[in-house]
Amino acid sequence: MLKPLGDRVLIEVAKEEEKTVGGIVLTSASKEKPQTGSIVAVGEGRVLENGEKVAVAVQVGDTVMFEKYAGSEVKYEGKEYLIVHEKDIVAIVE
Amino acid sequence: MLKPLGDRVLIEVAKEEEKTVGGIVLTSASKEKPQTGSIVAVGEGRVLENGEKVAVAVQVGDTVMFEKYAGSEVKYEGKEYLIVHEKDIVAIVE
Amino acid sequence: MLKPLGDRVLIEVAKEEEKTVGGIVLTSASKEKPQTGSIVAVGEGRVLENGEKVAVAVQVGDTVMFEKYAGSEVKYEGKEYLIVHEKDIVAIVE
Amino acid sequence: MLKPLGDRVLIEVAKEEEKTVGGIVLTSASKEKPQTGSIVAVGEGRVLENGEKVAVAVQVGDTVMFEKYAGSEVKYEGKEYLIVHEKDIVAIVE
Amino acid sequence: MLKPLGDRVLIEVAKEEEKTVGGIVLTSASKEKPQTGSIVAVGEGRVLENGEKVAVAVQVGDTVMFEKYAGSEVKYEGKEYLIVHEKDIVAIVE
Amino acid sequence: MLKPLGDRVLIEVAKEEEKTVGGIVLTSASKEKPQTGSIVAVGEGRVLENGEKVAVAVQVGDTVMFEKYAGSEVKYEGKEYLIVHEKDIVAIVE
Amino acid sequence: MLKPLGDRVLIEVAKEEEKTVGGIVLTSASKEKPQTGSIVAVGEGRVLENGEKVAVAVQVGDTVMFEKYAGSEVKYEGKEYLIVHEKDIVAIVE
Repeated sequence: MLKPLGDRVLIEVAKEEEKTVGGIVLTSASKEKPQTGSIVAVGEGRVLENGEKVAVAVQVGDTVMFEKYAGSEVKYEGKEYLIVHEKDIVAIVE
Repeated sequence: MLKPLGDRVLIEVAKEEEKTVGGIVLTSASKEKPQTGSIVAVGEGRVLENGEKVAVAVQVGDTVMFEKYAGSEVKYEGKEYLIVHEKDIVAIVE
Repeated sequence: MLKPLGDRVLIEVAKEEEKTVGGIVLTSASKEKPQTGSIVAVGEGRVLENGEKVAVAVQVGDTVMFEKYAGSEVKYEGKEYLIVHEKDIVAIVE
Repeated sequence: MLKPLGDRVLIEVAKEEEKTVGGIVLTSASKEKPQTGSIVAVGEGRVLENGEKVAVAVQVGDTVMFEKYAGSEVKYEGKEYLIVHEKDIVAIVE
Repeated sequence: MLKPLGDRVLIEVAKEEEKTVGGIVLTSASKEKPQTGSIVAVGEGRVLENGEKVAVAVQVGDTVMFEKYAGSEVKYEGKEYLIVHEKDIVAIVE
Repeated sequence: MLKPLGDRVLIEVAKEEEKTVGGIVLTSASKEKPQTGSIVAVGEGRVLENGEKVAVAVQVGDTVMFEKYAGSEVKYEGKEYLIVHEKDIVAIVE
Repeated sequence: MLKPLGDRVLIEVAKEEEKTVGGIVLTSASKEKPQTGSIVAVGEGRVLENGEKVAVAVQVGDTVMFEKYAGSEVKYEGKEYLIVHEKDIVAIVE
């Protein structure tokens, strides 16, 4: 298992279907928009300046939208994930 | 439903009517000004350094003006929304 | 009504008279200086890191000087206003 | 009267005498150094993150040196003043 | 022994196997991704603004992923290590 | 007297002897290093976010080394001084 | 004696032996790595926002590694030292 540190979460990114026209891949303009993924693991939260720890606001299993280009791509047991800070998650899809 | 995180809000942006002169679209100078929209969902607010949570100052249904170019465009069930931080909302239209 | 958010205020900007010499508009050097306006509405103030709210230091009706180029221009019911943060107001004219 | 906001002060700037040699104005190298002026009005001070207000460390009537190029020039009843933040005042001349 | 200071940790970096094709070393695109290593020593943690010390969230022996290009390379008794701040560790591999 | 504000101190800068070779002034490489001077006056210290005032760590009469290019040159009663923030003083020479 | 201010320490830098090949000095790539030195004096520590003073985490006599290019070179009684902030010390060599 990968255990994200601090206020980071581990995301399995949802594949975006690429549209092709006659075999030509169209670089979708929508690719600049937030992406969707599923939370696989969450960190223990960030530590405030008063020593208190604040849990992250998402849970394992949540489907989330996150800022494109945020986070670090990691590979674990042959599978690709993204590790992003909680602040880069814009919304939960319920 | 889309549930914005932290001090973010989900906005349905009001359409700006484009004026045309003889069919030519005029890029309005006013386009650099704040835009108007309607609050569709709000986050739970931001966490202060003392651990307290501060609710966002707008409510679902409010009509607001927000800084142009702020936020992230998201698409949900075929409809376009904007997710912006509370700090990018300049005023409530009452 | 427009209700500014946080430590923002709504200002009706005073017109600067342009001097002309023989019909030629002189771009006054003074245009880089702070402008004057009248407070039309004030926000509820900013929230400190201890959760306390600090009221803005100006009131509706005050005539103020504010930093040129600060704030966002907004249009409301056919009239132009400026929404600026309290920190961009340099002085009250009493 | 002009009442500066927050930790700002209103300064009447002392004239620097320009030296001329045979009628040619010498741009003094000393012009990059702090300038001197007299405090005409002071703001109520800045608000700390614990809500406390800290009075400014100078008083009306004090002669001060302040960083060149700091502050905003304002004109009030035909007279020019400078409004600077307390942090740009380097010393009191006693 | 090397004892890292503050919230730093000492990492023995795992070797990435370079793939070669007919003897030509391929600069792997994956080289921009976080690297893996093993924690050899940890600092005493960072000091919060209230004077409290927060222990680092990893322990000696942990296998971790950390941001590529983070930290300082050090050589100690003929062996190379990396000293990184805790914030540059993205996840623990369990 | 000049009374520095906040955490500033007034320094009488020690002259660096310039070495000349056959009358040619050598721009010493050491000129990029901290300079030495004598504390002539100190401010009342800086105000922390809890309202407490912290006295500066140097006293009138101390010989100090300070960062080159730090501070503001001031002239007072025909004599040149430097006003620097306490943070730009690197050491006391005892 | 030189007494560093705040969270600064005075370091006697260890000489790096330069390797020469046939008399030609080789600029070692390792020169970008942290350097080693010995702590000669330490400051009284930094003051937190609550007024508390935090002692530096190294002691006189410690051998330390510190970030290359950090700090200010000073000369005292004909000998060269480096004054660096505690944050630029990466590890203690025990």
